[in-house]
Amino acid sequence: MKNGVAFFGMGNMGLPMAKNLAGGFSLRVFDPSESARSRAAEAGLTALAPRDFDADGGWDAIFTMLPDARAVEDLLLGQNGDGILHRVAGTDGGGRGGRGKGEGGRRKGGSLFADFSTTGAESARRVAGVAGLCGVEFLDAPVSGGVAGAALGKLSFMAGGAAEVLERARPYLERMGGAIFHAGPAGSGQAAKMCNNMLLSTLMIGTCEALALGAANGLDAGVLSEIMRRSSGGNWVLEVYNPWPGVKPDSAASRGYAGGFLVDLMLKDSDLAMEMARASGVATPLGSLANQIYRMHQRDGWGRKDFSSALEFIRGGGGR
Amino acid sequence: MKNGVAFFGMGNMGLPMAKNLAGGFSLRVFDPSESARSRAAEAGLTALAPRDFDADGGWDAIFTMLPDARAVEDLLLGQNGDGILHRVAGTDGGGRGGRGKGEGGRRKGGSLFADFSTTGAESARRVAGVAGLCGVEFLDAPVSGGVAGAALGKLSFMAGGAAEVLERARPYLERMGGAIFHAGPAGSGQAAKMCNNMLLSTLMIGTCEALALGAANGLDAGVLSEIMRRSSGGNWVLEVYNPWPGVKPDSAASRGYAGGFLVDLMLKDSDLAMEMARASGVATPLGSLANQIYRMHQRDGWGRKDFSSALEFIRGGGGR
Amino acid sequence: MKNGVAFFGMGNMGLPMAKNLAGGFSLRVFDPSESARSRAAEAGLTALAPRDFDADGGWDAIFTMLPDARAVEDLLLGQNGDGILHRVAGTDGGGRGGRGKGEGGRRKGGSLFADFSTTGAESARRVAGVAGLCGVEFLDAPVSGGVAGAALGKLSFMAGGAAEVLERARPYLERMGGAIFHAGPAGSGQAAKMCNNMLLSTLMIGTCEALALGAANGLDAGVLSEIMRRSSGGNWVLEVYNPWPGVKPDSAASRGYAGGFLVDLMLKDSDLAMEMARASGVATPLGSLANQIYRMHQRDGWGRKDFSSALEFIRGGGGR
Amino acid sequence: MKNGVAFFGMGNMGLPMAKNLAGGFSLRVFDPSESARSRAAEAGLTALAPRDFDADGGWDAIFTMLPDARAVEDLLLGQNGDGILHRVAGTDGGGRGGRGKGEGGRRKGGSLFADFSTTGAESARRVAGVAGLCGVEFLDAPVSGGVAGAALGKLSFMAGGAAEVLERARPYLERMGGAIFHAGPAGSGQAAKMCNNMLLSTLMIGTCEALALGAANGLDAGVLSEIMRRSSGGNWVLEVYNPWPGVKPDSAASRGYAGGFLVDLMLKDSDLAMEMARASGVATPLGSLANQIYRMHQRDGWGRKDFSSALEFIRGGGGR
Repeated sequence: MKNGVAFFGMGNMGLPMAKNLAGGFSLRVFDPSESARSRAAEAGLTALAPRDFDADGGWDAIFTMLPDARAVEDLLLGQNGDGILHRVAGTDGGGRGGRGKGEGGRRKGGSLFADFSTTGAESARRVAGVAGLCGVEFLDAPVSGGVAGAALGKLSFMAGGAAEVLERARPYLERMGGAIFHAGPAGSGQAAKMCNNMLLSTLMIGTCEALALGAANGLDAGVLSEIMRRSSGGNWVLEVYNPWPGVKPDSAASRGYAGGFLVDLMLKDSDLAMEMARASGVATPLGSLANQIYRMHQRDGWGRKDFSSALEFIRGGGGR
Repeated sequence: MKNGVAFFGMGNMGLPMAKNLAGGFSLRVFDPSESARSRAAEAGLTALAPRDFDADGGWDAIFTMLPDARAVEDLLLGQNGDGILHRVAGTDGGGRGGRGKGEGGRRKGGSLFADFSTTGAESARRVAGVAGLCGVEFLDAPVSGGVAGAALGKLSFMAGGAAEVLERARPYLERMGGAIFHAGPAGSGQAAKMCNNMLLSTLMIGTCEALALGAANGLDAGVLSEIMRRSSGGNWVLEVYNPWPGVKPDSAASRGYAGGFLVDLMLKDSDLAMEMARASGVATPLGSLANQIYRMHQRDGWGRKDFSSALEFIRGGGGR
Repeated sequence: MKNGVAFFGMGNMGLPMAKNLAGGFSLRVFDPSESARSRAAEAGLTALAPRDFDADGGWDAIFTMLPDARAVEDLLLGQNGDGILHRVAGTDGGGRGGRGKGEGGRRKGGSLFADFSTTGAESARRVAGVAGLCGVEFLDAPVSGGVAGAALGKLSFMAGGAAEVLERARPYLERMGGAIFHAGPAGSGQAAKMCNNMLLSTLMIGTCEALALGAANGLDAGVLSEIMRRSSGGNWVLEVYNPWPGVKPDSAASRGYAGGFLVDLMLKDSDLAMEMARASGVATPLGSLANQIYRMHQRDGWGRKDFSSALEFIRGGGGR
Repeated sequence: MKNGVAFFGMGNMGLPMAKNLAGGFSLRVFDPSESARSRAAEAGLTALAPRDFDADGGWDAIFTMLPDARAVEDLLLGQNGDGILHRVAGTDGGGRGGRGKGEGGRRKGGSLFADFSTTGAESARRVAGVAGLCGVEFLDAPVSGGVAGAALGKLSFMAGGAAEVLERARPYLERMGGAIFHAGPAGSGQAAKMCNNMLLSTLMIGTCEALALGAANGLDAGVLSEIMRRSSGGNWVLEVYNPWPGVKPDSAASRGYAGGFLVDLMLKDSDLAMEMARASGVATPLGSLANQIYRMHQRDGWGRKDFSSALEFIRGGGGR
């Protein structure tokens, strides 16, 4: 109970999340990048390198927000049973000795772990399996809402794991987000996020097509957006993320598609969803075609732009 | 001013619309089908055959809600300048003699015409052009909201034509609907509806794919629906038209996909949108693939079922 | 028997076809464009304006090679029963009086008509229907083989109409082409061509994808082309129309995609096939997606380039 | 030189390949399945269990034809440096000690290895890398031609690896196949096969669509097949694998789609191609949609039928 919360990963998402969390809990944050640590320090956080993490520190909770599944597995599982899951549980070196909570040996520290990264369900289940062996309570709890949602403390959490673990985590999550969903057992948080983001990938392109079709037929994009928003075409993209430049002054589209949710990231999530669909034998024809479209759009040089720039692919903006 | 309003077309949509309109205006309704007239009469309406329509009747307004563009053109334009547009304006037989309002000859009756049918923009512009020659003020004002919206008086109207004509029509439309949009000049109402319904066609299939993917990976369809509804996958389908049987007790999906917005009609609208896209050189890859999917679904025997049954195509329900 | 053959349409296809035909038959050619007539005259042909066509001239055969269905219908059907079909049959002004050959009135001229244009099956059946009423024997006989095939007299003819009419036409067709197919009754030639060209539209893009995938994985495009050509990926595109610049020195791809079968024309044929599929309720998911791809490619500025330039869309050449 | 050739994998492909090879070379075959060994023995081959393989046997060549990448890696690489690659090279236990041929230690046996399985390029490069460390000369040499081609000794080999290694392998391959292609360095054989089979996956569906469209418009499928085969729609499917029942008496389609190249296997290859495309950032919109179609077709119960049964998906045969 001495150290409070450890938070690994001070990137674009992790830093604002940690700042909100710091308002209610004692916190130490970790990142291998010196510049990331500097930014965290400037925000008033105690920032350390991961190698300075004290596994015996009696942490109440440990959170991670990392770029991808590989980064999460490298940190949590390590290569030979030396990941922080093992170290916190005191089972490092002991390999798979500890089978479940009861046998997990002494609890050196708090056993509440939650990973907020987007890793895919397969990786999340692998990590959760090791956590179980180590006697650590683990949630996969990816978020939606983007950098803006993180800054405002209005993220949505989609959590996979035991319901009672989610209840233990809830006070922390409520500091960072507005909506907390229990999607189901381990891996379900990731699965739900993949489903949501695959759907989002088609909402965006479908909306771009409708706006492009209307504009080419003399409709005003703003008027058409408002009509569809309030009709059966209504969707999140029209509500808060209009892709037509100028329709919403504060949209990524209205500032040259700068920032926001990058095409690179939309495609990464779409790729994870495609792999999940393949593995489970589910047909996703629209999701698959959207995946191809983001891939072509990325290839044309738009990877570092907001994903609403898919409009430029649909209406023919040419290469960047 | 004697006769009030004439309303042509007492089908599934026209009848409930006329019933709502009758609450505020004097009304006569017209349909060539005897059984349709019987149903209208049972609802307390004065129902006549179209041949009994009195073009000299001094109508305040004339409305049409017919199955498709051909039916509208047959009634309004006729074959040789003998459509009711010409007859009401007193220009029948005179061919294209009347050029604009000023020359439209005596106004035998009210010149406010609105067509609520889904006809496509090309046909609407053709009809509007003739109306202009006849000195009749015309709106293309297709609706969204379906039979349920019609019954509740909560349709959305998407109107194309002059803004002042829409203002004249507004008191009538408000009896039948909740939202009234001015989409732009003649044909714009149809264009907006095509854009909206093309978008809807992709929202439905995209949502079906996401739910099928989640379910195949252990998620509960209801839980996942709620998560996505409140996240960036949120859309009208999740809000009011969930395609997964049982998630919403009152959905078409929960009653065997009976009634609702038929696959046949979704495909008809999608075909109109595809033709509009072709004619204007706009690429709609997702809309086009959705069109193919509804076509396959129709071919497999689902044409007379609600369009949310696309779920059965996506998750593999086999032929009906 | 005095005048021999009349050939309407001295465009890129019609002129070389007529030149080959002139080697065996007495011929007069017709085109409204003065420059087209000049080119025909330079090639030694007797070229006239269509208005100078003598319907009483006792023609053995009349052929047409025009840009599209509208041009064919304008010439053959005219507006009010004054098309050359009526005039040749001597039924002009008589409206639909002549019902079938027996009643077709005196034959002023030879009744063998064949249209080589690509018009779609619906238009071809309409023209054939009028021809039947006029007592004229009509074939829809679109070609494949392109400008090069026309110049070499190696076109393929896909003929719709009565088998005995095709036999009468055969001596003429053999001057212009190498393969003559009887596809079936009226309209079948057009239908077969639409099927073939829709298939071609997918062969080209499928081949581009395979070559792009191989090249991105270190394979030589020429070596891969040869492997696939002799394996189960073998197809006409690999055989004679390789889209990879440099693989075939004489390909359109190797000369900057100049000339050849233009994207505009491939898209036109694809649009006709899509309309035919819609009208007959047939699903063509790959053909439909190929249609969208050619549309995007055209929109990006490639309309006047050879259709093998689809490779640049697939591998990301950006806008022209 | 005592033992001649070792051939692992006596499945549907391996057995007929080995039978042809036995006509020219001394051969021992290996399979873990007793029934597979029985069938091989009935064919006159000396069949052993893999555990009886003598790594010190002085083999001239070792060939493998196994179900997938996992089976190949399990056999060749093993789990801890105990695969037959290591054992044959005499480096087992020595880990990665041998770096290249020069240091490969004594050559206990022949160093010519070729794998005929379809494994994907990534796996092939991994195996080739280990082979290089072990001082073994390795080819990835997947085949096309199916069971029929294997029986007739008319397979095509697409080989990746050094050109001189392919020359050493050529006398063996010529016993089993008609066409031997050098695709490029290690992994190129697999890459070429993936490209070819992705193209084939689209040729088949594109051809099915064209035939279905023609038939729905009154064309005879056999006549249309012949027209397209000899026109620009010509492709391997029309040449030797017509999907329309009855057009070719000896086709899989004409015997209820029994046998042949199963949908399961077409989908497996298509999945490998999709992964290769994803990893290299190549867009394959048609290949990707074909992948989805085979997935839906498999899901509908057609996995164990020939892949030409995709026709039933396209024209709507419903579930099996």
